[in-house]
Amino acid sequence: MMRAAAADARVIGLAGGLPAEAQFPKRALARAFLRAVRRAGAPALQYGWAEGSARLRGFVAGRLRARGAVVQPDDVIITSGAQQAIALALELAARPRDLVGVGAETYPAALELIRARGLSPVARWDGPPVRYAMPAVHNPRGDALPAAERAELLGTGGAIVEDDAYAELRFDGAPARPLLADAPERVLHVGTLSKTLSPGLRIGWLVVPARLRERAVELKQGSDLQASSLGQAIAETYLLGDGQDLPGVDWDARLARLRRFYRRRATLLGRALRSALPEWRFTAPEGGFAIWAHAPEAPRAVDELAFLRAAVAAGVSFDPGSTFRPDRAPHPLAVRLCFSAASVTSFPEAARRLAHAWRRIGEPGVVTDDVASVRA
Amino acid sequence: MMRAAAADARVIGLAGGLPAEAQFPKRALARAFLRAVRRAGAPALQYGWAEGSARLRGFVAGRLRARGAVVQPDDVIITSGAQQAIALALELAARPRDLVGVGAETYPAALELIRARGLSPVARWDGPPVRYAMPAVHNPRGDALPAAERAELLGTGGAIVEDDAYAELRFDGAPARPLLADAPERVLHVGTLSKTLSPGLRIGWLVVPARLRERAVELKQGSDLQASSLGQAIAETYLLGDGQDLPGVDWDARLARLRRFYRRRATLLGRALRSALPEWRFTAPEGGFAIWAHAPEAPRAVDELAFLRAAVAAGVSFDPGSTFRPDRAPHPLAVRLCFSAASVTSFPEAARRLAHAWRRIGEPGVVTDDVASVRA
Repeated sequence: MMRAAAADARVIGLAGGLPAEAQFPKRALARAFLRAVRRAGAPALQYGWAEGSARLRGFVAGRLRARGAVVQPDDVIITSGAQQAIALALELAARPRDLVGVGAETYPAALELIRARGLSPVARWDGPPVRYAMPAVHNPRGDALPAAERAELLGTGGAIVEDDAYAELRFDGAPARPLLADAPERVLHVGTLSKTLSPGLRIGWLVVPARLRERAVELKQGSDLQASSLGQAIAETYLLGDGQDLPGVDWDARLARLRRFYRRRATLLGRALRSALPEWRFTAPEGGFAIWAHAPEAPRAVDELAFLRAAVAAGVSFDPGSTFRPDRAPHPLAVRLCFSAASVTSFPEAARRLAHAWRRIGEPGVVTDDVASVRA
Repeated sequence: MMRAAAADARVIGLAGGLPAEAQFPKRALARAFLRAVRRAGAPALQYGWAEGSARLRGFVAGRLRARGAVVQPDDVIITSGAQQAIALALELAARPRDLVGVGAETYPAALELIRARGLSPVARWDGPPVRYAMPAVHNPRGDALPAAERAELLGTGGAIVEDDAYAELRFDGAPARPLLADAPERVLHVGTLSKTLSPGLRIGWLVVPARLRERAVELKQGSDLQASSLGQAIAETYLLGDGQDLPGVDWDARLARLRRFYRRRATLLGRALRSALPEWRFTAPEGGFAIWAHAPEAPRAVDELAFLRAAVAAGVSFDPGSTFRPDRAPHPLAVRLCFSAASVTSFPEAARRLAHAWRRIGEPGVVTDDVASVRA
């Protein structure tokens, strides 16, 4: 159903966490591509080493040092997106059947990976030998980890997988001090260019404690040999220039523009929601791509799948709350609404359609029909 | 040592299995890139589905059907190179601590992956519940699986991971009937564009029996969400055109050119070896990128590492035989010599340097010194 909805131009897509197409710097990436392909030896098209481009690792290390972490280029491994970095981190840090602390809600693809590996996600930080957290900008909530929770996370022993994917998209422009800076000996730090540049390049990274590095590179090599040479060469040339006459981008200026762009979208979607669904509750996000919204407590439990189906029928999609929860609980009913990729002018209509589906789902007969047909 | 050698322009590189830079169709790939990036919605830069581009899957299915297999586009999963396809296939087919039959020699990165997963590679086909084979063109031997061995492989039950990486680079231009055509219910078929187009794109594929498909896509998604959108868009546009005025490449004509190119290199390296090292034994390869050569039986066992070190000191690199063997045995001493990427005009000199190192290693004092310094 989600796929059909994504392919249907009549459905306003508030699902998926996609960056805005308008923010892909197509011309600059094309220029970077042409420079990279012309380089002697054509490293952009050839095999490379498992740990990835030295220049790109240097860039990542530099950005993290500016946020207080002690990181050298050799501590960084370029991965095929953040997802692979999370997968490698879990393989390094977790033993079979371990519990993994993830908090009350978290990134669905991490949850699925944890389960697929035979590990068990749980909502608490204290107790599990491994934790997966998004301290800078949480997905789906869009907030920073509160200081007390951060202290709790750092206070307990064991490994922490720190997913920093949205850190540079905090709307206030102050990416938090990474956990890596405070516990480098047990934090496995994950980052990506997918949200700030392009997910199509598949460029992420993993920073691991020195004792795990050799094993991490081995695992990376076994997984897929190396991240895309082409993606790395384009990213490197775009970010840092070609070492000759093509300069690198002003990355901080780009990030500032992106923050303004997405903050405005967050404001507009929030406004549309408050107008069309005044009884729903949400907190304005501090960064990222989405609003995490709770439905009011209904007189009886509303079926999440039926609501999703009604929404898609009304012409709007969202990510259902149960996919973000370690126990897959569909209640209390919540949804992730992404403001990142849909047209801004569609937000009021998207909110109205959501409200329409919400009212419709209140009609008992309709709910039953929908559920029956979906589950048939 | 191998890394230092690869970075040293004075060392003639016969290691690594890299395609020739001269064969990257840079201009056509650049054209494909520019078309792909300009497409509405910029799918080349955006997230895509885990199983990969439908057009690319259609292309792969069509090529396999032409070789006798019954394959539909939905049976194909686009992977981040062949290595990831092998990794997924093992995850699907092998249980913890399984033996994996691999033959007497095989692809080192597959061996490392098998070991890293806690599985045990063994040289025999009969017995292990899972087998990993390269029936069309073997790496490192460059030959096809003999009919009797093929029958043995198909005759025993259990899963077979079929690595088809070099199949289209059989010099006679007749890619073998894949095992997939004969045992579709238990063959997990692996292919790639790395040898015929560019490894930098990281485009491979995995074809799995229908009952494993859903699980395979889940595992793929958990590993890294999806193969590079950019690599897929470039490959798809290059191979199949942009659906408008840019036509796809004549892939069969390109493959025919590549076969002539690499066959000539195989001939020239073979000639140089016979001239400089007449006592070494090798069979002319039927395809692929390398010659698998055996040293003559020396009066005493020659230390493989010392020989490699002497070769690099003399200015030539190779892949040591032990890395291709399931038991890592360094004897009988053998080497993989890649004719794919080094300059053709360097082959006579490369062979002379190898001969020099071989004679030098025969001097007992030198060997001992070398080994001592390497292991210090």
